[in-house]
Formats: sequence, structure tokens, C-alpha cells
Amino acid sequence: MLGVGDDAAILRARRGTELVVTVDMLVEGRHFPRGADPAGLGHKALAVNLSDLAAMGAAPRWATLSIALPRADPRWLAGFSRGFMRLARRHGVDLVGGDTTRGPLNVCVQIAGEVPSGRALRRDGARPGDDVWVSGTLGDAALALAAGRRRIALPRRERARLERRLNAPAPRIALGIALRGIARSAIDVSDGLVADLGHVCERSGVSASIRLDRIPVSGILRERLDRPVALNAMLAGGDDYELVFTATPARRDAIARLSRRLRLKVTRIGTVSRRRRGAPLVTVLDARGRPLTLAQTGYKHF
Amino acid sequence: MLGVGDDAAILRARRGTELVVTVDMLVEGRHFPRGADPAGLGHKALAVNLSDLAAMGAAPRWATLSIALPRADPRWLAGFSRGFMRLARRHGVDLVGGDTTRGPLNVCVQIAGEVPSGRALRRDGARPGDDVWVSGTLGDAALALAAGRRRIALPRRERARLERRLNAPAPRIALGIALRGIARSAIDVSDGLVADLGHVCERSGVSASIRLDRIPVSGILRERLDRPVALNAMLAGGDDYELVFTATPARRDAIARLSRRLRLKVTRIGTVSRRRRGAPLVTVLDARGRPLTLAQTGYKHF
Repeated sequence: MLGVGDDAAILRARRGTELVVTVDMLVEGRHFPRGADPAGLGHKALAVNLSDLAAMGAAPRWATLSIALPRADPRWLAGFSRGFMRLARRHGVDLVGGDTTRGPLNVCVQIAGEVPSGRALRRDGARPGDDVWVSGTLGDAALALAAGRRRIALPRRERARLERRLNAPAPRIALGIALRGIARSAIDVSDGLVADLGHVCERSGVSASIRLDRIPVSGILRERLDRPVALNAMLAGGDDYELVFTATPARRDAIARLSRRLRLKVTRIGTVSRRRRGAPLVTVLDARGRPLTLAQTGYKHF
Repeated sequence: MLGVGDDAAILRARRGTELVVTVDMLVEGRHFPRGADPAGLGHKALAVNLSDLAAMGAAPRWATLSIALPRADPRWLAGFSRGFMRLARRHGVDLVGGDTTRGPLNVCVQIAGEVPSGRALRRDGARPGDDVWVSGTLGDAALALAAGRRRIALPRRERARLERRLNAPAPRIALGIALRGIARSAIDVSDGLVADLGHVCERSGVSASIRLDRIPVSGILRERLDRPVALNAMLAGGDDYELVFTATPARRDAIARLSRRLRLKVTRIGTVSRRRRGAPLVTVLDARGRPLTLAQTGYKHF
């Protein structure tokens, strides 16, 4: 970055790249609870934006950060900054601009990354016959939320582990970059697996079916899959920030290799098919391949 | 723009350019009054960011817009959008991303522009011997604010004219672009003439003196220059979003030509000199070239 102290930051994009730009606004009482730990909030505010770049296969470069705070609060700002900057350094993000002002607590992060021209992962590239893959495990963050709302009781240590998933998500930047040229479509799981895979199907003009028993979950969640709240967390819980992507079966070996290289589990959970009139965008199948009804899965939006 | 509907927008910077990026967060009750006209607010939220690009000589390209609103309010959003998009179209700005959420009213605009590599106008380029120039007229916006606070009484028609300056500032984009290679430093007047020229002096390691009688003002303000509130508006009023810039005397003809071409008044108001120990960054001189004291100018920050 050049020109700090000027009216704006001066940045240079690398040749042959496209910029990928996204923005998120987080409001106290809506996206995070009152009194939230500022360092955790700093981490999460950047992480949700990084996750959007990951889903596009972009390498993060620059961010701007605007904060409205009810009163000048150096301790709060130092904590927020610590969480934000630690994650920024880990991913090579330069903070190039910002604005701090007085007002009801509000955090707005805008981020730009780079991707070689024409190689960004998109939502509209899924084709019939593609495998459906997902990284990591799903549902832990939503189960932590459910525990916070007393919808499920969890032993303290297990709850603490789930809360780390909720509060300190790890954006899958390295995976997104590795999937350039391998995945045909991708999205990050922020609204829930069924909803987000549905966004891909909608934009790609296809349908998808996924196998319930293949969806990767943590041991903590697996033990509770008889509880609707856990099933719902797995299928409809946001906030995990894993990637869901599709690729032709010819790419299975390449995907296995990159999974080993990144030490990140990726799991094949289903198949893309042609869109049939009246059929749902996403069908969830049981272990024998029979479609589940909504009532059976307990699936509903939080 | 490509990729609308994806997790992020995909953008391509032109070859040989640098990006100029800036962000502003506006909070209700602090940066604009409760109940402010949404179309005017949409205009102003974009205009203040465009003005930062103008001060760098950048051509605007893309913006992102995040809004927190207390309740879903389609009429408010439509009004805001009308004001924002009208100004965006006028300057060729694509709205490439956004976020609307519920929360206390807050508007965060981030903008990116382009400038040929190495040609951005900066704050640190002023050199001893440079002329100091300013575009348009200064102080009208601050005088409108003062009238709103009943610090000065104005006839209704005159007040309405000043309020247009306050509420619908015209960012000096064309001037900024025309000044590439001509101005040695530039800044937009958002904190007030003395303060903003002071920022240039500080970053450039120089001092500047300006002649009170040369500072361009509207007829409405000129008639009231015996009032401290008017003098203060001229020297210390922000919100005019004119450009202050410096250039060598050899560029006077070029500046006169671009002023005619853009049909925009630019006025030479002073000179840059070497920094002297203990001297103020900016000295205001009377018509005979004698330094005014603070008490004489009535200058103080709002």
C-alpha cells in the first residue's frame, strides 16, 4: 500500500488478475450479542468476508474497516483490532482504510482479493453429473447457538468446543485457491447446507441430491443426530463457513490430493442432476437413497 | 462487473492503473440529522467518497454500499437509492456490492477509482514556491449549518441556496483528473480551508500563507464578511468539498486553460514556503500582506 495519510489508499492489482470484492455490515444485537468479546468480533467480522473470497477462489489482499462505537473506548478498540489483525496477518490482508465514528455499535468490513482472470469460482458452473463436496464438518456453529438458546443441553467442555466453531470460524481460503480449475462451482455455507447448495442449483439451472449419512459432522453432533435440533443444525445451520463445491467425477483424485496437502477433510456428499419441473432444488436422501420429507429431516430455517 | 449473484463481485482494473480506495461511515444524529431526506442522504453519502477520489485525481469506478435501517422501509430505500444512483450514473460508478440489514440508521460507502500508475495526486507533494489554489467558493455549506443553528439570520431564498451547497455537494472529479501532472499536491476541503491546507503542509514538510481577500466566496457570504460566523465559515467550514491544490507558478497558464475548459472557477490564494521552526503551518494574511491573529480572523473550529 502507498499513500497512507492521503485521502484514500493507493493500491496496485497484479497483472492478469481480476478483483473480487465483497462487503458485510454487522450490527450489535442482530449479528452479535451485546457485550460480545471484541477480539472475537474482530476475528469474525473479517472471517465472514474472507469466507466469501474463499468461495470465489480469490487470494485476499486488502480490507477497509469502519466502526461506529457508542463512546470512545480504547480498550474495546484494542481488543477488536487484535482479533481482526491477527486473522488479517494470517491471510496476508492489508488494512488500507478505515473510519471510526460515534454511534450505535456497527462494524462494516469490505474486502478485495485477486484471482487470475477468468478463473474465479462461481455459483453458476454446476453441471449434471458433478459430485457435490463439502469441506470440514457442518452444524457445530448452529448447535452452539442452539445451546446458547437452551434448545439443547451440552456438557461444558463440548459446548466450549462448539462455541469456538461459532466464534472463530476458519475461512477456507487455501481450499478456495486450490480449487481453481478443479471445482466447477462453489459457495460458502453461511445460510445452511441445503439453502446454500440451493443457491448454486438455482444459479446453475440444476438440481442436487445429497446423502444424509455422508454429511460430515463432529463427534459431538453425531452423537445427537436423533435430536431434531442437531439434524437441523447440520442441514440448515449457517455460520460454519465451510465450502460446498461441485466437480466432475474425473477430479476425484485431484481433490483427494489437495485434501491431503491442505490437511483438510473434504467429503463427497451427493450428485448434481438435471433440473426436473416441480422437483426441489436440493433433495436429501437417507442411507438407502430414499428422499426424506421435510418432516423426517426436521429441516427448517432457524 | 461480472458475477452478480455470487459471493462477491468480480472486477477488472485497467492495465497500467493503480486503484484508489476510500470508505466513509455516516451515522444518523451525528453526520446527518434524524429524518434527513433519504435522496439527499444518498447523494451526500456517495459525494463525500467521490470527493476523496477527486482529491487524488482518480476516476471513480466501483462502489459498495451497506445500510443498517431500523425497520424495512421500501420508501426510504427507494429515495436513498434514487439520490445515490443519480450521482453514481453521473460519474460512471457501478454499485458492485451491498448489504442491507436491520439496525440503527447507518450508511457505509466504500469506493474504488483508478489513476494511471504513479500519477495520483498526493498530500505530500507541495514544495516551497508553489502557488496555492482553490476551486469554486468556500464557506457556503458551513454558513447554511450556522443558519440552521440560528447563529446567523438569512433571507429564505439565500438560505435555500446555501443549503443546496450543504446537502448536494458536487465532487470535483473532473478537476482532479485534469490536475494530474499539473498539481503537485491536493486535498478536498472537508475539515475547512486552514485545517486541510495544514494537512498538506504537514505531510509535505512546508508552510503556506494565504491572502484573506483572495479567498473565493459567494455573494451571499461576501456581504457578511464583517460577521465572525461568516469569516469562520470561509476559513474553517467543512462540507464544501472543493479542492485545494498547489502547483508551480509555471503552471498558471495550464490551470487557467483547464478552468475555462471545465467552466469551474479556480483561484490562486497564496504561496507555499519553507517550514520555519515555530511558525504556523498556515498563515492568513490581510490585504496588505500582514499576518492576522486568530482573534482578528475569528477563526476557530466548529
